[in-house]
Amino acid sequence: MIYQPRIAFISILLGLLAGVSIADAQSPQQVVRTFRENNEAAILGDFREFLRYPNRARDLGDIEAIASYIRDELIEVGVHSELLRIDGVPPIVYGEILVPGATRTLGIYVHYDGQAVDPNNWTHPPFEPMLYTASMEAGGEPRPFPTEGDPVDPEWRIYARSAGDDKAPIAALIPVLESFRNVGVTPTSNLVFFFDGEEEAGSKNLGDYMRRWNDKIEDVDIWLFFDGPAHVSGRPQVTFGVRGSMGLEVTVYGATRNLHSGHYGNWTPDTGNILARLLASMKDEKGRVLIDGWYDTADPIGDEELAALRGMPDWDGQLKEELGLVWTEGQPEKLPERLMVPALNVRGITSGNTGSLARNVIPNTAVASLGVRLVKGNEPEHMKNLVVSHIEKMGFHVVSEDPDITLRMQFPRIAKITGGGGSVASRTSMADPFAQSVVAAAREAAEQTFGEDALVVAPGMGGTLPLGVLTEVTGKPAIIVPVANHDNNQHAPDENLRIANLWYAIDLYASLLTMPSTLF
Amino acid sequence: MIYQPRIAFISILLGLLAGVSIADAQSPQQVVRTFRENNEAAILGDFREFLRYPNRARDLGDIEAIASYIRDELIEVGVHSELLRIDGVPPIVYGEILVPGATRTLGIYVHYDGQAVDPNNWTHPPFEPMLYTASMEAGGEPRPFPTEGDPVDPEWRIYARSAGDDKAPIAALIPVLESFRNVGVTPTSNLVFFFDGEEEAGSKNLGDYMRRWNDKIEDVDIWLFFDGPAHVSGRPQVTFGVRGSMGLEVTVYGATRNLHSGHYGNWTPDTGNILARLLASMKDEKGRVLIDGWYDTADPIGDEELAALRGMPDWDGQLKEELGLVWTEGQPEKLPERLMVPALNVRGITSGNTGSLARNVIPNTAVASLGVRLVKGNEPEHMKNLVVSHIEKMGFHVVSEDPDITLRMQFPRIAKITGGGGSVASRTSMADPFAQSVVAAAREAAEQTFGEDALVVAPGMGGTLPLGVLTEVTGKPAIIVPVANHDNNQHAPDENLRIANLWYAIDLYASLLTMPSTLF
Repeated sequence: MIYQPRIAFISILLGLLAGVSIADAQSPQQVVRTFRENNEAAILGDFREFLRYPNRARDLGDIEAIASYIRDELIEVGVHSELLRIDGVPPIVYGEILVPGATRTLGIYVHYDGQAVDPNNWTHPPFEPMLYTASMEAGGEPRPFPTEGDPVDPEWRIYARSAGDDKAPIAALIPVLESFRNVGVTPTSNLVFFFDGEEEAGSKNLGDYMRRWNDKIEDVDIWLFFDGPAHVSGRPQVTFGVRGSMGLEVTVYGATRNLHSGHYGNWTPDTGNILARLLASMKDEKGRVLIDGWYDTADPIGDEELAALRGMPDWDGQLKEELGLVWTEGQPEKLPERLMVPALNVRGITSGNTGSLARNVIPNTAVASLGVRLVKGNEPEHMKNLVVSHIEKMGFHVVSEDPDITLRMQFPRIAKITGGGGSVASRTSMADPFAQSVVAAAREAAEQTFGEDALVVAPGMGGTLPLGVLTEVTGKPAIIVPVANHDNNQHAPDENLRIANLWYAIDLYASLLTMPSTLF
Repeated sequence: MIYQPRIAFISILLGLLAGVSIADAQSPQQVVRTFRENNEAAILGDFREFLRYPNRARDLGDIEAIASYIRDELIEVGVHSELLRIDGVPPIVYGEILVPGATRTLGIYVHYDGQAVDPNNWTHPPFEPMLYTASMEAGGEPRPFPTEGDPVDPEWRIYARSAGDDKAPIAALIPVLESFRNVGVTPTSNLVFFFDGEEEAGSKNLGDYMRRWNDKIEDVDIWLFFDGPAHVSGRPQVTFGVRGSMGLEVTVYGATRNLHSGHYGNWTPDTGNILARLLASMKDEKGRVLIDGWYDTADPIGDEELAALRGMPDWDGQLKEELGLVWTEGQPEKLPERLMVPALNVRGITSGNTGSLARNVIPNTAVASLGVRLVKGNEPEHMKNLVVSHIEKMGFHVVSEDPDITLRMQFPRIAKITGGGGSVASRTSMADPFAQSVVAAAREAAEQTFGEDALVVAPGMGGTLPLGVLTEVTGKPAIIVPVANHDNNQHAPDENLRIANLWYAIDLYASLLTMPSTLF
């Protein structure tokens, strides 16, 4: 990952000749942008190489390989980097740049693991990156990766698992640090990199890592989360909170085995119908969750959050048009408002088969995977209990293991519920002075790239990041600074990153890492 | 498939020495039973070989191979056999034995194709037969196939696709004919074999085959259907009717693509919930279909059928215990009564993923495969229209192709419905004199094997056979004479045949093919 420091070198030379500092000759943002413009094909080539590393959190062999790769890349651009290890779980890729005289420390969180993949659902293998001339939905076609000097169209998309979630920030940070090093730009803050390897598996060991290596992070003043998508409008955003996440799985039972739908149809319990009746009881047709107490424990929204919500772009109309939707859950409330209440969705249902594999059977089980999103105030265990109570109220005997024949003969309806736990929601006060400084820097960077008042300030995002753990362990605020395009298909097949969003990330990080220290 | 005719040969020898006919020395049933008892390992070995032939109706290469194999086996046991061909569809394996002086002709229907398989759901590959010491559910263990002289336990199970549905009758017919030939036993009727190669694909060309080769079947007096399972009690049965079958598939739509459940959860339509609400509206929790008009077109049940229903064994209690069921749809009506009304079941649901593949998405579609079983009087097209009308009444705009963005922006709820057609139900009069003859012969054979009054006479079975086509084209009655164990997992993974049921089939066919001609 060594770029030609063409323009940067000239800048240094000019600077030296003129007897002025680099900062006088070109702002750090300008230096980085010029560097990027002159190395676009190489940056894409490096991203491609990076995307080839499989990164499922549960595959420790893969995780080890990609963690080492990132550590080596950081070292190459001047970061003191090492892997922090707890046995049997993904390591933390740790790094630091200590700046003489710096009076504050930024903690930078990225996760290098990715969501599970079912390759059958992908157009291309998920770890063989493909470049497209536009998104597939917009009729983009595959094209070769550019070679040095080829023009790069910012509307291109690079398709691979984790392209948006969450390899893009690492792919943007490396060239920023590379160009800094080439030109001798110094960040205005100490930097601590803490790259998580199991965010998609719930960051179960992040808290332990932070406590064990507390000496490495105790000086962090504020955490920057480089994760999540940009605002749906395409405009950059900073966000002060995330929802928590909990997965539950419900299995209902018919006969002990699949039965022929002819010989037993109209007689044996119809598992698909049983599950359907149960799921239908959980949410009405307008999207209101019908589980008793579902909305009772959410913290009320404060005045500042309400003001921020009011100030956000009204993007629902455009988004609905893009997604082919006539209606949305909870309308007329808009998307940002809907993210402030806990959500219950069906992530998946499996029972028997459909399409060419459909057979004339009545399946012996039907399974629904439920995705719960929590807001501040919701305790995961309490919310799970509400779901369990509801299912009991619907007449089911609830178990946590498949029932044996004795249990089956005791209860007419049995539901197995597994899962739970998950992560809590988090919200950083919008009045926090550190937070205000970061917002100011981001606002400035956003203006340079996207124009005046481009930055969207959101009180909360819908997704989940291990924000709660970081703020809890360190007692320091956290702000989310996402860069991926909103239509990046994260967590889904055909995940992708729009190249323009990679360029935006590079611009943004250049600003954040060199924001004036006077802002604090 | 050449057996050692040990005992049979001795019988001939004894018969000749004594100057009496074979029939005097040993009844045909005794001849066949003795032959079977002396060749059990060889019969199982041949069945194994036969089960290795893949037989999905849609794979014409496989179908061609197995059809040729069956034809060759028939020729080897003295049947005049050939393949009847319509281009591009599975051939009919046709065969005949014309008996000088015979005054009636039995048509024998079997199908040699099998249900679709999803090998992922099978314990063993579906076309690699495995012998178990008992059913898997009963703790059976795999064991090697026996070699000559090894004792064979009738409780063993042979696992493979089509073991029960519907290769078993062919595997039983061949040794019966083989032993007849060895000993010189002559059937008491002309025999016409008409083996269908696409029953599991709806027997779409069976009518055409029968019309084109009408000269080969015009003398058939009664059709015997060798298909379906024995009565759940394990007792043999004859059945006078079948239900029709129709498959429908319903797809509901959310956004144009999968969306992240965090970023869009509580806002984008929840396809799993939408489908659940729709399915829940179709059937109440007691199993009564709620679609308007669902029960209106079923022919009323006649007095003879009612009497037969009353005479059937009450097996519900035992069956429920075996299947781990506390309740059944439509209770307190029993299974045989429930088969006299049209059924609607969920054969499968797919949307997103569950288990380890569950991801934090809101799937963009949810699909349900519906299995409809029709009774006499139900027109498939009419019943499909009832389902369509119901879905429209639930607020959906119904289409037959995936909606484009324009259509999506017109209708808040869209359902794609595909499928339909299928087969009609059939019922042969229980008063038909030919039918009474066959019942008498079957009753006698059943008594020999299972004891007095063993035969169950059922007015209708739940499954579907192309009975309607045969009775319609030939104008002759049809009776179903099943042999497979009721728990053979037909149409499902781990299909199997209990060896005792193969022995029963051999006994039964020996009786049917030699029933006294005076009965007609």
